[in-house]
Formats: sequence, C-alpha cells, structure tokens
Amino acid sequence: MALTNGLEVQKEILDAEIKSFFDSAPPLKDSDDVSGKLEEFVKKNSVPSGSGEVRRVVCVTSGGTTVPLEQQCVRYIDNFSSGHRGAASTEYFLKAGYAVIFLYRRGSCQPYCTSLPDDPLLESFECTDDSNIKVCQSHSEVVRNAITKTHAAVTGGLLLKLPFTTIFEYLQMLQMIAFSIRSLGPHAILYLAAAVSDFYVPWKSMAEHKIQSGSGPLDMRLVQVPKMLLVLRKDWAPRAFCISFKLETDSKILLEKADMALKKYKVHMVVANELSTRKEEVVVVRSNEKISVRRNQSPGVVDVECPLVELIVGRHSAYIENPDLW
Amino acid sequence: MALTNGLEVQKEILDAEIKSFFDSAPPLKDSDDVSGKLEEFVKKNSVPSGSGEVRRVVCVTSGGTTVPLEQQCVRYIDNFSSGHRGAASTEYFLKAGYAVIFLYRRGSCQPYCTSLPDDPLLESFECTDDSNIKVCQSHSEVVRNAITKTHAAVTGGLLLKLPFTTIFEYLQMLQMIAFSIRSLGPHAILYLAAAVSDFYVPWKSMAEHKIQSGSGPLDMRLVQVPKMLLVLRKDWAPRAFCISFKLETDSKILLEKADMALKKYKVHMVVANELSTRKEEVVVVRSNEKISVRRNQSPGVVDVECPLVELIVGRHSAYIENPDLW
Repeated sequence: MALTNGLEVQKEILDAEIKSFFDSAPPLKDSDDVSGKLEEFVKKNSVPSGSGEVRRVVCVTSGGTTVPLEQQCVRYIDNFSSGHRGAASTEYFLKAGYAVIFLYRRGSCQPYCTSLPDDPLLESFECTDDSNIKVCQSHSEVVRNAITKTHAAVTGGLLLKLPFTTIFEYLQMLQMIAFSIRSLGPHAILYLAAAVSDFYVPWKSMAEHKIQSGSGPLDMRLVQVPKMLLVLRKDWAPRAFCISFKLETDSKILLEKADMALKKYKVHMVVANELSTRKEEVVVVRSNEKISVRRNQSPGVVDVECPLVELIVGRHSAYIENPDLW
Repeated sequence: MALTNGLEVQKEILDAEIKSFFDSAPPLKDSDDVSGKLEEFVKKNSVPSGSGEVRRVVCVTSGGTTVPLEQQCVRYIDNFSSGHRGAASTEYFLKAGYAVIFLYRRGSCQPYCTSLPDDPLLESFECTDDSNIKVCQSHSEVVRNAITKTHAAVTGGLLLKLPFTTIFEYLQMLQMIAFSIRSLGPHAILYLAAAVSDFYVPWKSMAEHKIQSGSGPLDMRLVQVPKMLLVLRKDWAPRAFCISFKLETDSKILLEKADMALKKYKVHMVVANELSTRKEEVVVVRSNEKISVRRNQSPGVVDVECPLVELIVGRHSAYIENPDLW
C-alpha cells in the first residue's frame, strides 16, 4: 500500500511536469491540418478489408529532435540521427501490409530513399544535348524505385508523412498520434526509433535574443525532458504495442540500460543498439528474453531492419491474439 | 609604443589559442583530396583569359557549423542557417564572372536550388503509366535550371563545392582555402556568410561517451572559439578582399556590433543583417559609410543578394585598382 502510494505520488509529479512542458511549449503550427490528416488516415485504415481482417497501423518515429537555446532561434542542440533506421523500417512495415504514420525529422532520411546519393537531384540527373534532363544510368533503378514506391504508398493511403524539427513539435505530434490510434486498440504499434533529446531549456526561461559572445565562457543549464514514455504507455495509447529504442556508445552499459527502460516505462520491447555496430546488429530486449538480430543472418538481406521488423510483426500478432499475456 | 606592445601581446595570446584549437581538433578526413581539388581549381582560374584579364575568385562560406558535445558524437550544438544567403550569392558571383569556392554545410541550400521544394526528388517528379519517371510540369523549369546550371558551372571549372559539418572541419578548410588563394592577391574575395559557432567544447575536455541523463539537470560550460577572423585577414590571406557577416535578432545592437567587428577584425566590409528582415534588407558597413541594400530597390529583383553582390563586385574592382586605399 505504501509502495502504491509512492508510485502514485511519482506519477502525479510526472503528470505535473508533463503538463508544465506542454503548457509552456510554443503552440504547434498547422495543428488543425495535422489532426485532420491523422483522423482521415486512421479512419481509412480502420475499415476491415474484404477478408474481414483489420489493417494494422504503425507509427514509426525517426530522426533527431532539436532543443532551441533561444526563442528567436539561432542556436539549438541537436541529436545525431540520419533517420536511416526509421526510413528502412517503414519500408518493411509497408511490405508486411501495415499502414505507416511516419513522424520524421525534417530533412532526415525518407523511406525508399536510403540508397540515394547525398544530393539526389544534383547527383542522379544529367543534362541531355537538347537541354532536357534525364536520370543517370547508374542511379536510374534507385531513383525510379524511390519515386514510384513513395507515390504508390502515399496515394494508396498507406503512408502518412508528418515532419517535425524541435522537441516541442515532436512530443505534441506524438501525443496527437497516440490519441488518434487509441481506437485501433492492440492493432496499432508505436515504434519509437527517433533520437529524442533528454535535456531542454524550458521555453519561458529561454533567452529571447541571440546569446552574446562578448566575454568569457558560456554556462548553460538544461533540465530533463519529462519522461513521456510511461504516460504514453499508460494514458495516451494504453492498448497499442509499444517499442522503444535505446542507443548507447558504450556497449558495457547498453543491455543494463535497456532492461531498466523496459521496467521503468512498461514498454513491450526495447531495441538496444550501439552506435558503432547499429547497422549490423540490434538486441531486442523483453522481460523474459534477449534476442540478437543481425543483418547477415539470412543470405541476401541488405538491412538489419528486415529481420527486426519480421520479428516484431510476429510478436505483434501474438500480442493481438492475447494482449493480456504481455 | 606601449599600445603596440599591448596589441602584440594580444595577438600572441590569440595565436596561441588558435594553435591550441587546431592542435586539439580531430584531423580533417580527406584532407589530401580537398587540398588537391583546391590547388587544381585555383591554378586553372589563375591563368589570364584571352583578353589578358585575370579571373576573380570568391570563397563563399554558407550554412551553420556544429559543435559536438561528445567525441562519439550523438549530441551537438548547431547554428540555424538554411544557407540560402550563400547559395543565392554564389549564383550572382558566377553570373558576374567569378569562379566560386562554395564552402557549405552538408545538407544546406545549394546554388540554383533555392526555389526547389523541400524534398526536390519526391516532390518534383511523378511516375508515368509505363512506370518511368518524369518531372512534374509545375516544377520542370526550376528543376531543369538547377541541374543544367549546376553541371555547367561545375564541369566548366567555375564552381568548386566543399562540404563541412563541424566547427573543426569548417575552420580547417577555411584555412586551407585562404592559403590556396593567397597567390591571387587582391583578385580573391572571402565572403564569409556561414553562421559560425561562437562557443565550443574543446575536443580534449569532451565526454568520450554519450552524456547520461540519469539524474538532475545538465550543466555545460562552453568556451569561446578563438576569433580567427583577425588572423585570417592579417596572416592567412592578407591581400584578399574580406567581407564578414553579422547576424543579430535585436536590431538595436546590430549596427553597433557590425561597427565593432569592422574595427576589431580589420575586414573590408561587414554585412549587417537582422534575423527577421534578412531576406528583405541588409546594411553594408564600411569605415566611412553605411549602405542599405534592399531587395525591392529595382523592379523584378528576386533576392537581396542580387544588389548586394552587385555592390560588392563594384567595390572589389575599386579595391583591385588600389588596395592600399582600403
């Protein structure tokens, strides 16, 4: 009883922190537009198909969030993430028949575009003699693939792309998505691959103008971003299958941190990955198992996201069958 | 005499700070490749044309630099800059007959690409019925323009693009460029439009691994980046025409800060711009004049960079005629 009360008090403190975070955040631009798109997307994908089967929906978050250091923002802290993991995973979820809400950092890697050169337009096209343009032979396959598959998924109503930049935008949009997929119950997955800032400067305590470099060093105090994951799991979308990611550069603490996250946030799975080997191997951590997933475990597999998504889809099926066992 | 000694001591301290910055910076990857490209580019553009006139060369720096917070970098501080100013200016310098070294932040805006949509490949092309791709009618002009003009400038040997990400890469490459254009004397311009970090974490005092978010707020101390501008002017490329940029969000202090920069760093011009109006107006500050340059001062002008570069080209001609008057 004492323990329950202790946890309740902790939850109350967290709820207050989260309320304060959202209350002080700059309002989301295009909020109505985003919520309209979400409503339409979820509604369309809620209708059972001819076979009577309900479409599964996954929200894939991707790329890093920024933390502004000034209200009229010149400087910000950013989290490194190319968005490759989220983009590649989206492709495999679409292939497995899921509808995907792709919540991505503006400018980060896009689904079907992971093999394109850095500057796809300038590096993949050339001018013809009659001053028209054509795709270079060497890139024609990947370029055609990127454009046709993206258009097919978007116009088919199976891929909704929503961009963010700051931590404020990301968390506001994630909350909107979580609310919108509640109606799908266990058929929805939250696949939280984005690299979300742990620290931020509360909007109200932020400098209005550019910080001056006049004299001496710059001392900054950042406070922790409230841990939304627990609230996402418990309140925002309690029946969705929830997978979080843990990235570390130090392999010695990785699995321990992943275990802690699993217990603390009550997510269904944690995907643990180490910065230097993240494209080769990840470890899926559950309460009773740790499964190593490797890129090269089957011949011809290009990305580690292929076996990873395969594993998740299997576990999601089991979850849909019997959510209470999880 | 006392004053001179005071300045000399200051210069010695600065030189020591700069040496320490470069000594502790992670070595530039592809350093040999960059220096080879630079040598070839400057050599090609040093040969007088048929009319006996020497080609002018400008180094345009563009976009923001990052400051890593961890050696195995997950988090970094970034300076907001789309790179629009540098990209548009490059176009006008090329139009005016200059050869351009475009030192740009990876992923930032490119010359001839400022009117493209956010994701040019996915937004400008569509699939045809025979599953080929073609450029959409609405974007065909800007896309063709971007590709043909970029290819013409690059293959014609008039545009050399060099990307950077961190403050360490930026300053190392800027030094290499400055050394390489010394031979061009007053025919070279340094047009420093990049948004360079004022503060950084010295490589050696940086955390090796990802900073943990275990408990409490994060306190960070950043030290000032040594002011390289004075050394660039005086030692690296003393005869080049040197233009720096000053961006502020507070118009009240802008011109004063620009004046201070002019005196402190001995540059030939400072372009002062305020964040909210920077696409409409800039003020060119010299020791004896302040010239307001506005986008709409001539009919049909799209960018403020058009009259700005025109003004600079005129002043550069005067400088070449008689550098000692400046």
